[in-house]
Amino acid sequence: MLFGELITDRVITGKQGIEELYNKSFYGRPKGDLLEISLTEAAYLILMNKIAVELEGKVLGFKEFFLKASSLVKNFELHYIVYKDMRERGYFIQPSVTGFRVYPRGGRPGKMPAEYFVYVISERAPLYLAGLKKNLDAADNLNKSLVLAIVDEDSDITYYGAKKTTPSGSYKLEWKKHLTIASLLEDRVVVWEPEASALLHDKGFFGKYIGDGYLQLSLVESGYLLKKEVFGIEKQGNGKLNFDGFSGIASEIESDFMIKFMAYEALRDSGIVPKTGFKFGSHFRVYKNFETISTITHSDYLVHAIEHDHVFSLQQLSRAVRLANSVRKEMIYAVADSDVHFIVIGRIRL
Amino acid sequence: MLFGELITDRVITGKQGIEELYNKSFYGRPKGDLLEISLTEAAYLILMNKIAVELEGKVLGFKEFFLKASSLVKNFELHYIVYKDMRERGYFIQPSVTGFRVYPRGGRPGKMPAEYFVYVISERAPLYLAGLKKNLDAADNLNKSLVLAIVDEDSDITYYGAKKTTPSGSYKLEWKKHLTIASLLEDRVVVWEPEASALLHDKGFFGKYIGDGYLQLSLVESGYLLKKEVFGIEKQGNGKLNFDGFSGIASEIESDFMIKFMAYEALRDSGIVPKTGFKFGSHFRVYKNFETISTITHSDYLVHAIEHDHVFSLQQLSRAVRLANSVRKEMIYAVADSDVHFIVIGRIRL
Repeated sequence: MLFGELITDRVITGKQGIEELYNKSFYGRPKGDLLEISLTEAAYLILMNKIAVELEGKVLGFKEFFLKASSLVKNFELHYIVYKDMRERGYFIQPSVTGFRVYPRGGRPGKMPAEYFVYVISERAPLYLAGLKKNLDAADNLNKSLVLAIVDEDSDITYYGAKKTTPSGSYKLEWKKHLTIASLLEDRVVVWEPEASALLHDKGFFGKYIGDGYLQLSLVESGYLLKKEVFGIEKQGNGKLNFDGFSGIASEIESDFMIKFMAYEALRDSGIVPKTGFKFGSHFRVYKNFETISTITHSDYLVHAIEHDHVFSLQQLSRAVRLANSVRKEMIYAVADSDVHFIVIGRIRL
Repeated sequence: MLFGELITDRVITGKQGIEELYNKSFYGRPKGDLLEISLTEAAYLILMNKIAVELEGKVLGFKEFFLKASSLVKNFELHYIVYKDMRERGYFIQPSVTGFRVYPRGGRPGKMPAEYFVYVISERAPLYLAGLKKNLDAADNLNKSLVLAIVDEDSDITYYGAKKTTPSGSYKLEWKKHLTIASLLEDRVVVWEPEASALLHDKGFFGKYIGDGYLQLSLVESGYLLKKEVFGIEKQGNGKLNFDGFSGIASEIESDFMIKFMAYEALRDSGIVPKTGFKFGSHFRVYKNFETISTITHSDYLVHAIEHDHVFSLQQLSRAVRLANSVRKEMIYAVADSDVHFIVIGRIRL
């Protein structure tokens, strides 16, 4: 049996450890003649009977070591669960500052670079968008894929891949300007002119008919058409509205109007047609290749607009991604900052 | 053409209205020799060219009438959209205080009672659990089904049925007491004794193995077993915990621990086996007929615990129900009050 010693927050073995553990299976990191093993690795090695760890001259059993490690390292249990899962599925995996580096199948440390950064997080913890973006940038810079390993209450792990994306579509419409004057009613807008209604609906997939020739539009659609000067909007008692006036009223009706609008505008301007994603619990479902209303098919993905200081509830994230995947769509978050950028998050099978 | 007059917030016609509108198709309500028509009904009748409505001697077009009605009646547009949809699909439908009464297919006012109470609400509005429960009670008392008609931003309608339910299952286990002492680590509990682990896992579907003989349990599972005195729990530095001590710590780890625990306990005590529903974005997935771990099949429904003063975001509700339905499960909300009661919400096709 190989012996190691628990020293502060790592386990140290002699040269034999380098030969038996590192050279064969890439456990730990050689430091001169010694092998330095993280507590996560050590717990797994104890479980596998590959090492015995001593503290103050006494060998620790799995239970004693686990309790000790749990008191020394934050989120030790989570990291242990993920480490064990990846090892058991044949990956070479090394601890890094924020989680693990995982090597591609067939790959190993030294031979080729790691493929994934795995960031470990509990189902219950908040996931800060700012932190996610930092991890995304770091992974991007090193040409790695970012993986979130979320450990649920039952200690099951779900792996999500996150990456930046730039949605685009084929939709182009040369808009006529000043088509008509629409009315802002309580929380939606109506176009009363049959010709304008037909054009907006059939060629642009805006709005929904509420009667022959009468087209009802959502607030984001209306704001977009107003900003592009396709039509004017008036409100009983307020007269004609400019975009600022309209968006002020719209923001009172729905507090997240502006971030939704920014996402909507970015998508439309990229040739994509967004419609409400309410039935999927997201802000938008999105059509990449809309031509006319008569040739429309299934929407391509779901988009949810969030602010730059958003904090994900992982339960909500899980629900959103799972639902999107269940209808074979991707789940994309549109981050409304000074401009809009997009992050796609999906389950992956490692 | 039949003429009606807009008087305050309704349209009044003479006897001819009763004959042409009420007797044939149950529009409006006869009051002596007059027919009283709600603005929602009147807008639809104008659209159908069945009535012309005058205000101060002048006939109002659809646009004028719609604008006027929208300024007189809160949520007029929403009610109009739902009314039109139901009428076009052949239902007889009558306005009521909070929405509509809808008659069963083939049924009509006077001949048989209404089947549904339809409560109309915008995608953007908050849905108060207290209000939902009042509506459920009212519907129950009159032996009707409660339907939520949620109008989304694109003016599409999704119909949800809501009803009270009492989940129950076949699981019974006569627990031995004082099996072992488990350890509370950072945010989960570990049982170290292989025999206790095997019993809890195989016969009770508690926890998950994190190594041979070592079983990791969630906080709600642990709280339940502690309260039933199946095992004791100790925490390094705190010694043995009683249920109050444990639930205090657990509530610091997850703020909604107590409502989750109440739901968990109610389900377990009813013979049902709940496990985390994280992969489905809900608190629990639930097994009605668990016998042993080796014969387990798919879970039967999803349960999410909420407080008695919960306010539903309809987008979240939509996402939860849609996801549950996509995996052929029902979505059940467990309301944790002085005791726990259950409401099942699902999409319905009217």
